[in-house]
Amino acid sequence: MKAYKDMSKEELLTLKAALEEEFKEEEAKGHNLNMARGKPGFSQLDLAMPMLDVVNSTSDMRTVLGNDTRNYGDLDGIGECRRLMADMMGVKKDNVVVCGNSSLNIMYDTVSRSMTKGVNGSTPWCKLDKVKFLCPVPGYDRHFAITEFFGIEMINIPLYDDGPDMDLVEKYVSEDAAVKGIWCVPKYSNPTGISYSDEVVKRFANLKPAAEDFRIYWDNAYCIHHLYDDMQDEILNILDECEKAGNPDMVYIFSSTSKISFPGSGVSAVASSQANIDFIEAQMTIQTIGHDKINQLRHSRFFKNIDGLKAHMKLHAELLRPKFEAVLDTLESELAGLEIGTWIKPRGGYFVSFDALPGCAKNIVAKCKALGVVLTGAGATFPYGKDPQDSNIRIAPSFPTPEEMAAASKVFVLCVKLASVEKLLEDMN
Amino acid sequence: MKAYKDMSKEELLTLKAALEEEFKEEEAKGHNLNMARGKPGFSQLDLAMPMLDVVNSTSDMRTVLGNDTRNYGDLDGIGECRRLMADMMGVKKDNVVVCGNSSLNIMYDTVSRSMTKGVNGSTPWCKLDKVKFLCPVPGYDRHFAITEFFGIEMINIPLYDDGPDMDLVEKYVSEDAAVKGIWCVPKYSNPTGISYSDEVVKRFANLKPAAEDFRIYWDNAYCIHHLYDDMQDEILNILDECEKAGNPDMVYIFSSTSKISFPGSGVSAVASSQANIDFIEAQMTIQTIGHDKINQLRHSRFFKNIDGLKAHMKLHAELLRPKFEAVLDTLESELAGLEIGTWIKPRGGYFVSFDALPGCAKNIVAKCKALGVVLTGAGATFPYGKDPQDSNIRIAPSFPTPEEMAAASKVFVLCVKLASVEKLLEDMN
Repeated sequence: MKAYKDMSKEELLTLKAALEEEFKEEEAKGHNLNMARGKPGFSQLDLAMPMLDVVNSTSDMRTVLGNDTRNYGDLDGIGECRRLMADMMGVKKDNVVVCGNSSLNIMYDTVSRSMTKGVNGSTPWCKLDKVKFLCPVPGYDRHFAITEFFGIEMINIPLYDDGPDMDLVEKYVSEDAAVKGIWCVPKYSNPTGISYSDEVVKRFANLKPAAEDFRIYWDNAYCIHHLYDDMQDEILNILDECEKAGNPDMVYIFSSTSKISFPGSGVSAVASSQANIDFIEAQMTIQTIGHDKINQLRHSRFFKNIDGLKAHMKLHAELLRPKFEAVLDTLESELAGLEIGTWIKPRGGYFVSFDALPGCAKNIVAKCKALGVVLTGAGATFPYGKDPQDSNIRIAPSFPTPEEMAAASKVFVLCVKLASVEKLLEDMN
Repeated sequence: MKAYKDMSKEELLTLKAALEEEFKEEEAKGHNLNMARGKPGFSQLDLAMPMLDVVNSTSDMRTVLGNDTRNYGDLDGIGECRRLMADMMGVKKDNVVVCGNSSLNIMYDTVSRSMTKGVNGSTPWCKLDKVKFLCPVPGYDRHFAITEFFGIEMINIPLYDDGPDMDLVEKYVSEDAAVKGIWCVPKYSNPTGISYSDEVVKRFANLKPAAEDFRIYWDNAYCIHHLYDDMQDEILNILDECEKAGNPDMVYIFSSTSKISFPGSGVSAVASSQANIDFIEAQMTIQTIGHDKINQLRHSRFFKNIDGLKAHMKLHAELLRPKFEAVLDTLESELAGLEIGTWIKPRGGYFVSFDALPGCAKNIVAKCKALGVVLTGAGATFPYGKDPQDSNIRIAPSFPTPEEMAAASKVFVLCVKLASVEKLLEDMN
């Protein structure tokens, strides 16, 4: 296989003509495929349907402690659900508050509260001239949307195979008191799929922030979302590491069952130090009388414990693996050696991240769209939607069937090839 | 029955001795009763249990429009649930966004958003020196807690039998641009049980605010919470009236099924003009990917339509009426003519509001507590927990059984009598 960059103009023009022919053929097929969002597929959702039976009109609606889940009370979540989420997040039950249906909402509330009330008594961010967040890139568009919404300046930090560029993180955090946070997806990162190494986690825990109200926003969304039995990433416990390092209050951990039970009808949780939890609850008690405890009961009774959660996620993995492999196999068989793109084979999570030749991502996404294959918008994985290299594309294989993923992947590599040829030819002029 | 105020010192001392005797007798009974919070009773909750069966593992989980409620989507709520809530709130479906499990949370978010982002583009309140809210009193403690939390100055407005003192409301709203809102429970008000007259609603709709970002926070929590079939309060539609008056954006309406299905596991909604809804959704789309649509489906299928809701609330009324009447009968039979307290007989809602002689409320609540009867803290119905008259006490009859309510009411009137005698004697010295 000859690398495109080594081709002559003539070779590229010949290739271009052939690819354009293929493009027309695909166009004629009238595809209608979507790889844009990390939505679980129908078969995954079906796995959780029996959960809807475990709490019914004949159920005892009381918690283990005897509290009626149907009435007000238990602001921090019912005990058995706190236990379940604590075990999933690898923290102590006392450090967990179970919330509503969305960890994104907890993150939003956490930033919003910092704007109006500060962090554990610090100056409210809305009173400051400048607040900045570090954003490992590529990253999760909805994280960046929250900080952008509140007018927080976002600073790109390169994300490597073992985590963010920690030299840069340490420099910013220790030197600039306006830096108040960093968005992290430490395990099976969205979108690259990498997990933070032990060294990276330790360096996080040992940060020496210039700002007392600096916090790590640790979105452990994919903590038990492995794709393989025999290749599972594990990350160090950041809460323990922060405590060891004398920074007990420096991290908020977020997670949810959105991609375990039902997106939108799961339960979410935040874990942190007692001081942070106290501050969060002082706000939460103003915001709500309590979250949906019947749904918490439903989750606790269906999954029973961490082993139940893990067994359920094994079933998810069996459904997701063929979809991921459909993409990865196509990338490998069609693009290897062409030097027009790189990607990481993830061992878990929800995405495959593809780096095209600089300047090609938008064109690839547009071409796919023209063929009826919807991808996440190019740039979405960067703050302000601006990928400085116009290179990164997030592929979400979970929602289509494996067959659809194979068809979509075929379209994708075709568009990568064509956009790359166009770019190389353009660069020659 | 001789009014206490007409008694001589000697008569009062004799009465005091007799009441203290009674007090000891009640003390010996070791009561353990709670009239503090507006929690539905077990029998009310039992009525909604079949709701837990209507969505089960064999259900078609798609909305009428075919959207899968188990997955992401439908940020503004599933169509059938928007219809249900719209009909309940008396507004058009397009003006409604169905949210999570708590209307309090929507109110909190609405104020919080105004702090950080302003109102439809106005200056964020956190950038202003002073923000004020008008608070009809007595009112709902959790409303006041939100505004207090955000450092908003609260101004007491007397609440009469037909609504707030509108002369005062008009004066503040038209003259002071720092006045950004007013908390209202327009129907079966918490705690007095009164409903706003048509004239009051019209005067609200015709306010001429000095502040462009002034809004009416219309918490229609008890919109279908009648106690009687033949005596039902109806209020004018504030959204229509505001539109007619050329103030289409001036009101947010909040409601929920917390006291219809399950507190904490119901659905909530906000209704407003299209411009307001657009602004709310622009924020909501940053905050969450969507609310719990399976629970929305559960509610829609169980209640079916507004008639289903009303039929269900008729069953609630049958359970609540005896409890309210246990309180009201005791107040009537024990206190009429003594001129040591006034109360309103509510036709709906969740509370009986009692006004003791000035300076007696705290003492009454303390005495009740000493006898094992827990009441909402005196002062809770006023901003900052400060009742200037120390007079108002909120009684919540819903949670205890009718028998318990009768026993608790007996304790209550005893404590009212004793505290009143103590006060009158004190005033003589």
